[in-house]
Parts: sequence; structure tokens; C-alpha cells
Amino acid sequence: MYDRFAALRLIDDWLREDIGAFDLTAQLMIDADAVATFHMNAREPIIVAGVEVAADVFTRYEPRCQIERRVQDAERVDQGAILLTVHGPARALLTAERTALNIIQRLSGIATETARYVDALKGTKARLLDTRKTTPGLRMLEKHASACGGALNHRLGLDSGVMLKDNHIAVCGSITAAVARARKAVPALTKIEVECDRLEQVHEALAAGADVIMLDNMSLADMQEAVGFVAGRAALEASGGIRLNTIRAVAETGVDFISTSRPQQSAPSVDIGLDDAV
Amino acid sequence: MYDRFAALRLIDDWLREDIGAFDLTAQLMIDADAVATFHMNAREPIIVAGVEVAADVFTRYEPRCQIERRVQDAERVDQGAILLTVHGPARALLTAERTALNIIQRLSGIATETARYVDALKGTKARLLDTRKTTPGLRMLEKHASACGGALNHRLGLDSGVMLKDNHIAVCGSITAAVARARKAVPALTKIEVECDRLEQVHEALAAGADVIMLDNMSLADMQEAVGFVAGRAALEASGGIRLNTIRAVAETGVDFISTSRPQQSAPSVDIGLDDAV
Amino acid sequence: MYDRFAALRLIDDWLREDIGAFDLTAQLMIDADAVATFHMNAREPIIVAGVEVAADVFTRYEPRCQIERRVQDAERVDQGAILLTVHGPARALLTAERTALNIIQRLSGIATETARYVDALKGTKARLLDTRKTTPGLRMLEKHASACGGALNHRLGLDSGVMLKDNHIAVCGSITAAVARARKAVPALTKIEVECDRLEQVHEALAAGADVIMLDNMSLADMQEAVGFVAGRAALEASGGIRLNTIRAVAETGVDFISTSRPQQSAPSVDIGLDDAV
Amino acid sequence: MYDRFAALRLIDDWLREDIGAFDLTAQLMIDADAVATFHMNAREPIIVAGVEVAADVFTRYEPRCQIERRVQDAERVDQGAILLTVHGPARALLTAERTALNIIQRLSGIATETARYVDALKGTKARLLDTRKTTPGLRMLEKHASACGGALNHRLGLDSGVMLKDNHIAVCGSITAAVARARKAVPALTKIEVECDRLEQVHEALAAGADVIMLDNMSLADMQEAVGFVAGRAALEASGGIRLNTIRAVAETGVDFISTSRPQQSAPSVDIGLDDAV
Amino acid sequence: MYDRFAALRLIDDWLREDIGAFDLTAQLMIDADAVATFHMNAREPIIVAGVEVAADVFTRYEPRCQIERRVQDAERVDQGAILLTVHGPARALLTAERTALNIIQRLSGIATETARYVDALKGTKARLLDTRKTTPGLRMLEKHASACGGALNHRLGLDSGVMLKDNHIAVCGSITAAVARARKAVPALTKIEVECDRLEQVHEALAAGADVIMLDNMSLADMQEAVGFVAGRAALEASGGIRLNTIRAVAETGVDFISTSRPQQSAPSVDIGLDDAV
Amino acid sequence: MYDRFAALRLIDDWLREDIGAFDLTAQLMIDADAVATFHMNAREPIIVAGVEVAADVFTRYEPRCQIERRVQDAERVDQGAILLTVHGPARALLTAERTALNIIQRLSGIATETARYVDALKGTKARLLDTRKTTPGLRMLEKHASACGGALNHRLGLDSGVMLKDNHIAVCGSITAAVARARKAVPALTKIEVECDRLEQVHEALAAGADVIMLDNMSLADMQEAVGFVAGRAALEASGGIRLNTIRAVAETGVDFISTSRPQQSAPSVDIGLDDAV
Repeated sequence: MYDRFAALRLIDDWLREDIGAFDLTAQLMIDADAVATFHMNAREPIIVAGVEVAADVFTRYEPRCQIERRVQDAERVDQGAILLTVHGPARALLTAERTALNIIQRLSGIATETARYVDALKGTKARLLDTRKTTPGLRMLEKHASACGGALNHRLGLDSGVMLKDNHIAVCGSITAAVARARKAVPALTKIEVECDRLEQVHEALAAGADVIMLDNMSLADMQEAVGFVAGRAALEASGGIRLNTIRAVAETGVDFISTSRPQQSAPSVDIGLDDAV
Repeated sequence: MYDRFAALRLIDDWLREDIGAFDLTAQLMIDADAVATFHMNAREPIIVAGVEVAADVFTRYEPRCQIERRVQDAERVDQGAILLTVHGPARALLTAERTALNIIQRLSGIATETARYVDALKGTKARLLDTRKTTPGLRMLEKHASACGGALNHRLGLDSGVMLKDNHIAVCGSITAAVARARKAVPALTKIEVECDRLEQVHEALAAGADVIMLDNMSLADMQEAVGFVAGRAALEASGGIRLNTIRAVAETGVDFISTSRPQQSAPSVDIGLDDAV
Repeated sequence: MYDRFAALRLIDDWLREDIGAFDLTAQLMIDADAVATFHMNAREPIIVAGVEVAADVFTRYEPRCQIERRVQDAERVDQGAILLTVHGPARALLTAERTALNIIQRLSGIATETARYVDALKGTKARLLDTRKTTPGLRMLEKHASACGGALNHRLGLDSGVMLKDNHIAVCGSITAAVARARKAVPALTKIEVECDRLEQVHEALAAGADVIMLDNMSLADMQEAVGFVAGRAALEASGGIRLNTIRAVAETGVDFISTSRPQQSAPSVDIGLDDAV
Repeated sequence: MYDRFAALRLIDDWLREDIGAFDLTAQLMIDADAVATFHMNAREPIIVAGVEVAADVFTRYEPRCQIERRVQDAERVDQGAILLTVHGPARALLTAERTALNIIQRLSGIATETARYVDALKGTKARLLDTRKTTPGLRMLEKHASACGGALNHRLGLDSGVMLKDNHIAVCGSITAAVARARKAVPALTKIEVECDRLEQVHEALAAGADVIMLDNMSLADMQEAVGFVAGRAALEASGGIRLNTIRAVAETGVDFISTSRPQQSAPSVDIGLDDAV
Repeated sequence: MYDRFAALRLIDDWLREDIGAFDLTAQLMIDADAVATFHMNAREPIIVAGVEVAADVFTRYEPRCQIERRVQDAERVDQGAILLTVHGPARALLTAERTALNIIQRLSGIATETARYVDALKGTKARLLDTRKTTPGLRMLEKHASACGGALNHRLGLDSGVMLKDNHIAVCGSITAAVARARKAVPALTKIEVECDRLEQVHEALAAGADVIMLDNMSLADMQEAVGFVAGRAALEASGGIRLNTIRAVAETGVDFISTSRPQQSAPSVDIGLDDAV
Repeated sequence: MYDRFAALRLIDDWLREDIGAFDLTAQLMIDADAVATFHMNAREPIIVAGVEVAADVFTRYEPRCQIERRVQDAERVDQGAILLTVHGPARALLTAERTALNIIQRLSGIATETARYVDALKGTKARLLDTRKTTPGLRMLEKHASACGGALNHRLGLDSGVMLKDNHIAVCGSITAAVARARKAVPALTKIEVECDRLEQVHEALAAGADVIMLDNMSLADMQEAVGFVAGRAALEASGGIRLNTIRAVAETGVDFISTSRPQQSAPSVDIGLDDAV
């Protein structure tokens, strides 16, 4: 789900941000006609995310850069793996290097951490969902990184789904009224989700015709009961306080989805470097 | 170091990113003339960074939002502390909420983690430096968060300092030649730093007139020797593999600066929420 | 579904487009401190759409403009009805006038024409859907105009739903395989629609788990058979060659949705003028 | 009058608008390395306008798209005519298709309708003029479409001519004073037009030195009298309520120009499709 | 001819350019709540141009700045005259100061120099014209400055007039053919100018129906002859190598316009300062 | 110090500014498939600055333009020297010509004038510094032109150095306190300069640890005394009222830097033309 066209605008902003007026060191020290070749390589085992956008950072800054991509996003690679090789004007490579590394380190960090949660779900029917708790400005790339790690995307933005929470329900008086109001105007291919923190609410949401029901911070027992009661008539999403060591137990209640922002908000950047190709 | 004028452009991009076409839920469910008041509060003890930019997210989206700021950036607050109170059109508050939280959670995470490193330096003369390993698009805000945590900023971008590394030195044949070349054209208020990984290089860089000398991945013994030899004639920056449990030993060698990207690349977002003000 | 924040960026582009270097006539002929009051009024009976964006054109160009809105979008008004009154610097009113009128004339034209189709569906259960055949640059405003006229929005953009057509199905070999592939990665709140032009395809799409099935250019008899067979297990959308004089017959087959681009692609702008308020 | 450089910025906005986060269907269903070839063809007889901008939509989104243009803007083509052939990555073709079609359908609609008015003027000396009543954001392209249909452009924007109306004249006290004020500061290659709705005003405008005199909503008799009196000393533009069935009578009064917004504000989009090239 | 709406976008770019990441000095040294009052004053006698845009620099950066404008653009003021007084947050005033001064110094320099040429024409009928030889990015503001100095604007851009030069004429074979080709498609309120460097060309251009004829680098004698021959049937513009000490002689030949880029390309910035208001 | 990536954004703005809606003359008169070759040449002896950006103007507008660069920025060339040759679509060359010339004329004017000041310093150790008094929007290009003329750049923007002036010192009570405050937070590679207009201040600034001391409008005698006292412990910058005929005497006092805005604010554009290559 990497759209180069959309990414180019971000890349422009990032490069301007790091370069400022101009790269003093590269312009002063590197001759305009010097060329170089660098390998970008993983310094730890990772799930790769961002090899395309990192490549585009170089070619956007200097179209004469030539890229050889060695892996694909979503691949699992070992320490030492070469992700891409870039050849071009040395000055440009040094100017663009930091921006290219910053983004691929962050995205691969998210993919790698996400995969740990996804691995914990193996053998259950539950799918991991990401959230909208992404870094401002990087929504689509971080959603892409989540997908590389094996998660399914939840809402891409406020326009890709209706999510009825306390405030919305309070306005309408009841879950029933809220779902009815939403149904009347929601775009034809968009689903409606209702956030519930008690079982009675799950009953009401199901009756009201919710497409997805969020079980928010419920006990395992309550989740299990909800699964039994709903019996596939709506999708069920467990949410709230999910951790790597608790996620499997949640999955085993039989819910369809488990959502967590942990991999996006807590994953450290992974170590990826750019070295001279000898 | 928060420049609202610069931040507004970022805020525009973030809001567009999250809203997409429009906030389906808020537009469908919340009446245009409903008003609300929310508190933004810390759900764990933190160093605050980003209360101004979070406030600006609300007012930029809807100028009728009124903000009461309860703390200042760089303040240390307890769990439960109210950071700001926002009053305005309910629809706008719900639309802008996620973006405001996403940024303050991340920036406060960086400030809080940075402060742990700074605390470890208490009583030594070493100052913590951040790096350019920031999230693409958030350079200035993350530099600001570092400063809120007590760090000093290293280069803001490629235009705010000359940093001579292996590649640049190789081009000129020697550190001496490289510093001379840089000195000839560097802007008048900008310093030159030389990256050294051996003591002989430190000697050459000092003689060449470097303003700052980076001791890159050196042993504590070598760092101590460099401090003794340089004796204040240039500033010394220790760098490479700095961790919270090793930083104090590095500081005790007598270096002026210790740089690390850890708080920017690994700090988890902290927990900050937005709740109805009853 | 009018998001002012998003609209302001469009308004800026429109004003720059019409003003060019500057409004020669207004700058030469109108004194900078002259003020004026104008009524914007309907010169024929219309369904209003765009009164907010028209008002914002004036205030965006000149924040000192004061607007009194007299009607709400989606209201049906008679010839002569005043839509809004604007008071402010005469020079600004004359400069912004044409842009404000151009947009409200077009949007109200779409709303008014859409309402004719919606009226034709009264008493049936079918809902009118718009399409992505909108004027480039005006997608959201034209979708809003459709909604003002009583239609439900179909996809807002390529990110708000999966639509499987011939090409996509051919890639996967069958509708069954195509739906399975889509289901594996589609965001959690997004539906999948399959375009069918034969009844066998409807059977396969239903079995494959499509959320919505498009009956593309089918005969009334086939549509009726599809309605009977599907029996509410998926939503059915009739599409292709819908006209005002044929739409009711289509609705009476029992389909859930009828989609047409006619009101967006063929509705003439309605007559709305700006006159001195005496 | 198609400036590619200017159009590219619009195309970027259009594509972002339709794609949103990303094209879910194309990204999920179409392999990244699949290629395809499509013909864009006219499904009814039309005057073509927009073949260049439609081609640029594809190449801007994906520079590897190869275009073979089969017709030129302003050509009259039959039903079934191929306008262009596009070959390239299938995913990109499907993503960009709707935007390319939307713009060429609209522009060709305007050109085709404009040509009907121009045909009605054949054999008279009157030239058809368009107006500033264009779709916000599409001014230049719609002006280009008008020209493709055979019309002459009136003002491109508020900076390309002085147009003195009631309000401006009232400020100065008389047409004479208003023209004098305008003449003093109008750029050297820009003309001054005066809007008149009575014959006395025509006399005054001519004496004042107006370059063009608009006969606004005048009777045929009055227009004819104005033509006789002015006798070529200024250009005369008939305006107001022009329809396809009345325009020739107006032309036969001997006016130089006849202006109408009808083809821009009322022309339906024409039917143009994109089909697999077998 | 100052359009604030258009200027704001430029001001944003200028401020970002000067501020970069942030104003280190103001942020470090000036308390956020300090306020100050400054006078902007002329340190030499000048024709003022840019007092509005300079004021807008302050208020755009910080909307709480209050401006008292003491003079109007195009006024002639003595050394020491206060142009405006600005009161607001001290930090903002110091950050925006340089940008505000840079633009008003440059624009007033152009206006002041332009006025010298205009003064030299007093008593003749010739009007001074500016050119398109303006600083990239400042076209409209420099055109405005020219007008403040008393000149008339020539083309605002390539869209505000047709100018037929050697290359264009060569394409068509003759001036006659070139004017005819242009006349067929030029917008209704736009004039056609022909550049001539020999008298025979003037004759041909007049016969062809040129609205304005440029006498390019002609001798005074030839210009006088052209004036006599043309006798008001087209406007005549003298151009080429005009200097302050030669312009009056050119005017006395009876031409209508004299164009020169000297005041735009050679005028030094005038001395305007910002001082504490005690 | 020319960064093409940064320049392209400026070039886009400049071209849009000059072209407006479209280049009427080129579009009407020049066939789309005509090609041409032009030489850009110096019509007087100059120091070239801007040959790269001028070339980029052509290729940015029309990528099919082919450029042969004949000189490098910072070269001194004689009258008649060809700077570049451009070959491509004639229509594009004529449309982009004025913008390309306007920028190279201005930048070369600055470089040429700067070189006169630099020449006057030959044999002294003083380096010429430019200032922030640049044309809004052209900072980096004018800084580049200064460097082409032999000057060293002073601050690139407000983020590339701390400059303590009267206002900042007053806030802190003393130079000593102000420098201490700045030192605590200034980025690690950034210097601090103190503006002094009396010798006592120089003493205090030196003791406070200023990196650079500005001698503002001091007498030659005072400057000489400051040089003797400071004795290399800080860099000294002479500033204020520097003229071409006084600069050498200032240099002979032994200061390190002499700063002046004269070449930027007063240099006339040099004469560079574009001619048919026969």
C-alpha cells in the first residue's frame, strides 16, 4: 500500500527540513562530479518496511541516482542483509542519506514490532488491527509498515469508517438511535462500529445493526460471552491495554480483531546503516 | 524554541491527513452548535513537551476553540495533572482530538526519556546533545522536545554546522586539509566539527583548528586521554553506543558533550488523554 | 458534510485564479474605505447547496466581511429567496463576488437536479447514490451537494471502498478468488463491492461474501430476479444508463441502491445573483 | 492555449483528491508489474478538448506511462474515434483513469456545446465570447475548451481588462468620469469596457473613450441603433439571456461580440470511455 | 494595486526563509510576554512604497501585533518621517523586523527612482511605462512600486497583452500576417503591440491594425517622424537605452509612452530603519 | 552553494508569476513543434552568478530543453562571452526567457559588485561578509552570488547564529549576563556574536566569551585599538557605513571581517541577453 505519488510530497518536505539553506558540508567538501556507491544494510534482524520510500528519497533529491533494490517491503531479513544499493553523485548521496535512513529505520521498527504481535496470534482466527495513533505526517507510511508486519489496517482516517463512542451515543440518547442516525447517511461502502464497555451495550449494538462492535477494556470472560452471543452476526474487536504477553489469551476468546497502538507508539527505530560499497 | 508560525503549516498537513474527506462520525452525529469542554491530562508522570502545539491544533482547526494552558513545556508533572483545558464546538474538538494527542504524546515521550539521560549527568560538566536522527517532518518539534528534557541541540539541519567525516576527509587527503578547505568558506557564525575514532586524529584535528572534536566510539581510557591532551582548546563530544547505564562513566572522562539519538528513536509515546470536563 | 478547514485551501486557489495579479477594476475604481451590503438571492426555485462555502469565499478574501446566513444547505427555497447577506469593504465584495456565485450556482444546480431523482424514488426503499464522476478539484463539495439533494454518497475516493471490476476479476481468475484476495487485506471498516453484468456473477459474488453487488446495465427482469435470489444477504446497487424517466421502474425491482452520475455531470448551474441591499 | 506547466499543479491536486490515502482496489488486486494498454474513445460525436491534459494525468501519476495521441484538441470527431492510447503499469492506469476521464469529458462537453453557438453565427461578423462564470479551479482549462469550440476568450481573470459596471460608475458620478479615472492607471495593453443598459449610456461611453461597450439585455432594435451610431468607433458586445435559438438574430444586428456563459454553465459532460485495447 | 490576499502567500515564504528553524536569538533572549513599540522611519527623503506589505509582515507572523500606519503608499516623505508604528510581543517584532525592512526598502527604492523619471516628463504628454524585468517573485509588488512612483504598468505578465517581436513576425512572414493571426484569437479586452526598429515597419504595423507600436532603439528623428505619420491612430511606445538624462528629449518627440527597466533593475534600496519608540 | 532541489520550488513560483494564465503571444504565434537554439551572453564584463539556476528555469518549464553550460558560476567573463546555449521547443524558450534572464542578471550584478569590494581587500587579512539584507525570497541565491563574488556568508537566516544587540542586552542587564544566557542553550555548532559600539563593550564581550564581536560604526582608531586589545581571542567584524572607497582603510585596522549590504542592496542588474544562435 505504498503510493509513490503521495510519498513524493512528503519526501520533498523532509529533504527541505534537513537541508535548510543547503548542506554546508557536502557543498564545501565534495566535488560536484564525484560519484559513489553505498549499500544500505540491516544491522539487526528485521522485517523491512520503507525500502521503496528510502530509495525514492535519493532519486527525488537527485534523479541521477540509480537504485538497486535487494529486498521487498514485508520481507524478514537477517543482520547484515543489504536492502538496497545506491549509486550516484557523492554529494547528493551524502545530503540525502540521513533522511533516507531516518524513515526506513522508523518504518522497519514498526513492522518488526508489529510482527511480534502477529506471531503471537498464529493459529487463532484473530487479526491484529492498528489504530489512528500514528505519528502526525506519517499516517500512510506507518499504516503501510503495520501491514508489512502482518496487521490489518483499521481506519485510515476519519473518513474511512464511522466509530460511535460515548459522546456520539449520548447525543442521540441510545446506541439504537445513534446507529440509526449514522446508517441514514453513511457512504455506501463504509461500515459502522460501536464502542461498548458492557455486555448490555453489545446486545443493543448488535440489534441496532452495527457492522463491528468494539469490546473496550472488557474482561476475558465478558469477551468470551460476547463472542458466544454475537455468533458471527457482527465482527468483534477487542481493544484496550493489549500487551504482547496478554494478546494470545484475548485472541483465544474468539474475537475477530484485536487492536493496539503499541507497535506504532512504542517500537524503537531499528539499526540500518549506509556504508561504502567496496 | 517553539515557533508557532512554522508549526501552523505542519498542523495543517496533520489535520488534512487524519480528516481526509471529512470526519464522517463527527459530521453525522454531532450537532453543529453543540459545545463541549475537555481536559487534556497526563496519565503518568511526565516532562511535558508540546502543550503549545497541541493547543494550536485545536485553534487552527476551529478558531473559536478557547484554550486554557495549565502547564508550560519543560515542566515535570504528576500523573493526573491537567495540561490544558479546551472549550469550543464539540464537533471540532472531537475531530481534532486525535491529532492533538498524537503529537503531545510523542513529544512528551521524548522529553521524558531525554530527562532520564540528563539526570544521569547531574554533577558532571557534560551536556547531553541530541542528533539529526529525528522523525522526518518533526525535526524542529523533536529538537524542542529534547531541549524540554534538558538536552542541548546539535545541528538543526545540514546548514547549521560543518561536520567532517571519513568521506570528507578522504576527499581532501587529510584532516588538516579538510579543515582548511572548510574554514575558507564556512559562514562566519558556524563551527566546524571533526569526527575522530583514533587519538592521533584528535591531535591532528586540534592542530587544524577544529572547533569541536567528536570522539566516536572510543574507549573510556582514550576519551580521558583526549580530554587531558586537548585541555579545553576545542570542545569534545563523545558519541556512539551511549546507553542510560553507561552515560555517567562517559561524562566522568571530562568530555564537554555526549550525543545520543536514543531518546528520539526509542522513547515510547507517553499516555495523555482527553476527558470530558464535568 | 462541509468541512470549512478543507474548503479554505480550495477557496484560496479559486480566488488566486480569478484575481490573477489583482482586480484591476476594483482597485482602480473603488475607494479602499467604501463599504457595501449585498444580498445573494435565488432567481429560481432551488435546493440550496454551498451557502457556507460561498460565505467563506468572502470572509477568506477579506476577514472584515460580515455574513448573515439566511438559509441552510439542503433547504428548498423559492425564487427570490435571500440566501445570505454580506456586509463589508465594497472593494472586497466586488472582487470576491464572481467566485462566490460560481461555486454556489454549480453546487445548488447539482442539489436541485439530484432532488428530482430522489423525488422519483419516494415510496420505494431504493436510495440514490452518486459516483466518482465529479469535477476534478470539487469532489467533496459535489458529494456534499449530492447529499443536500437527498442522495447517499458512494465512494468518496479510491480509498473508501473496494470495487472489483472486470480487470480485477480477470487478474484473479474468478470473482471468488478476487473477493478472497481483497478480504485478506481490506481495512476493517471498509466494504467490498463486485460489479456484475450477468446473473451467474451475482450468484458467485454472493457466495464469495461481497458486501455490495452492482447490477451493471441489467434488464429490469434480471434485476428483479437478483433481488429475489439475494434476499437481503448483500446490498444490491443498480447502475448504468439511469435516467429520470426510468429510475422509478428500476427502484421498483427492489434494489437497495441506484447510482447515477447524471446530476453531477449534466446539471446546469442555477441562477443566483448578488444585488445591492437597498 | 494549454500550458502544461500550469496544468501539472492542478493534476496533482486532482489525483490526490481521488486517491486519498491510496487506491485500495488497485493496490490489493493488481500486481505491481502488470502492464496494460487502453484506448480512450469518444462514445458520441464531439469536439475534443482536453486530450493533452488527460494524457498528462496518466504520465504525471506514473512517468512510465506511454501515450499515443490520436487527435488534437479542437478537432471534431465521430462516435467511436480513438482519442489516445495509453500503455503502462496496469495499476497506475486504473488509478488515474477516472480523473483523466472526468476532465476530458467536461472540457469536451464545453467545446461541443460552444461549437453549437459558434455554428449559429456562421456568416455573420459576430464572434462568440465566453465569460468568467467558469468552474472554480478550472478557469484556464474551461477557457481553453471554449476556444476549442470556436469562441474568443473574454477576460481570463480580474487582471486582464477593466469592466465598468453600475457600482463603479456610481462611485465616480458618471460614465465619463469613470472612464477617465480608469484610463489614468490601466496597464498599457489593457482595454476598458463599459456596461450599458440604455442607449444614452452608449453615447456617453463612446464619447468617454471606452474601447468596448457592452449592450446589456437590450432589445434587438436598440442594439441595431447602437451599431449604427457607434459605427465601428468602439467594439460592441451583446450580453444577457443569449440562447441558442436567439443568438443569430442578435448577431444580425451587427454587434462585434456576443457573450454567454451557457456553454460553460450548462453543457453536460460528453461520453468518453477507456477500454482495453485488444 | 496592493492585494493583501495575494501578498500573504509571499510573506509566508519570506518569513520562513529568514527564520529557518527558528530565530535563535529572539527565542533565547526575549521573554515570551515582553512587549515593545517600534517606529519605522525614513532615513532619507523617499517616495513610500510597501508600507502595507511591511505592516502585513508583522501581523502575519504574529496576529497580536498592532499597526498604526502613518503614511500611504505613493506619498513623498522627508528624512525622519515615521512610516508606521508597530506595537506587540517584542520577540515577534524582532523576528519579523528584517523581512519587513528588506521589502519596504526595496519597493521604496524603486518608487523613489521611478519618480525621478516621471518628474523628467512633467509637461509632456508621455507616460512612463515599467517592464517585465522585475525581480523573480516580486512582480506585482514591484509593479505596484512603479505605480507609486508615477509610472503606468506595462504587461503584468505574459497573459496581459500580445507583444509581437522579430521571432513571432518571422514565423508568419510579415507584420501584417502576424497581427492578423494574433487578432483572430486574442482575448477581447487585450491589445496587440508590435515591436518595430525601422520606420517602414511602423507603417506596416499601423496598417495591420496594431494597438500599440514600439519604437525600439530608434533615433529621435525617426521617432518624431513616426509620431507625425501615425498621428494618434495607434499608441507609440519608445523603448531602448532610456536614461534619466535622455528621457525628456524622447518625450518631446511626442510619443505616448516611454518604457524603461532602469528604476526596477538599478534602483538601490533606500534607508529605512526600525527604532524603539521612547 | 547552489542546491537545485531547493531552487526548483522558487523557479516554479517565478514561472507562474510571469506566465499568469498563459503566454498569449507564444501560444498564439509559435507553432508547437518549432525548435530553436539561443545563446545567453554577457553584454558587459561580469562575474557570473546564476548560470545553473538560469539553465534550470528552461528545463523546469520544458524538460525537453537541452542546455550546454559554457561557464561556471564565479567565473569572470568578458563582454560577449556565451554563458550557456539552450536548444528546445521555440515556444518554451520564448516563454521562459524573461525569467531566466531576470534572475541571472540580478545575481551576476551582485557577484560583480561584491568582487569590487573583495578586490579592495586584496593583501589584507580581512574577509568580506554579506548580510541578511537580501531580497525577500532570494536569500539563498543572493548569498550564493555573494560567495561567487568572493565574500564569505554571514548568517544564512535567524537560525544560523546568535547575534546579541542592544535590545537583547538590555533584557539581561549586561553583556556578561546576555552571553551567559545564550551560551546555556545555543546549539553546539553555533557561535555567538555581540554587537558593540564602544570599546568598553568590546572588553566586556571578550571577557563574557563572545565568539565574534561586531564593531558597529566605530572610528578607525577605535577599531585599531580593539584589534590590539582582543589580539585574536575573538573574531572582530567591522560594520556600518562601509563604502568601496573606505573599505581598505577599515581592513588595515586588522579586523577579521568587514560586513556590508551594499552589493546586495545597490548593485544594478548586469546586461545579459538571449540571442538567436545563427
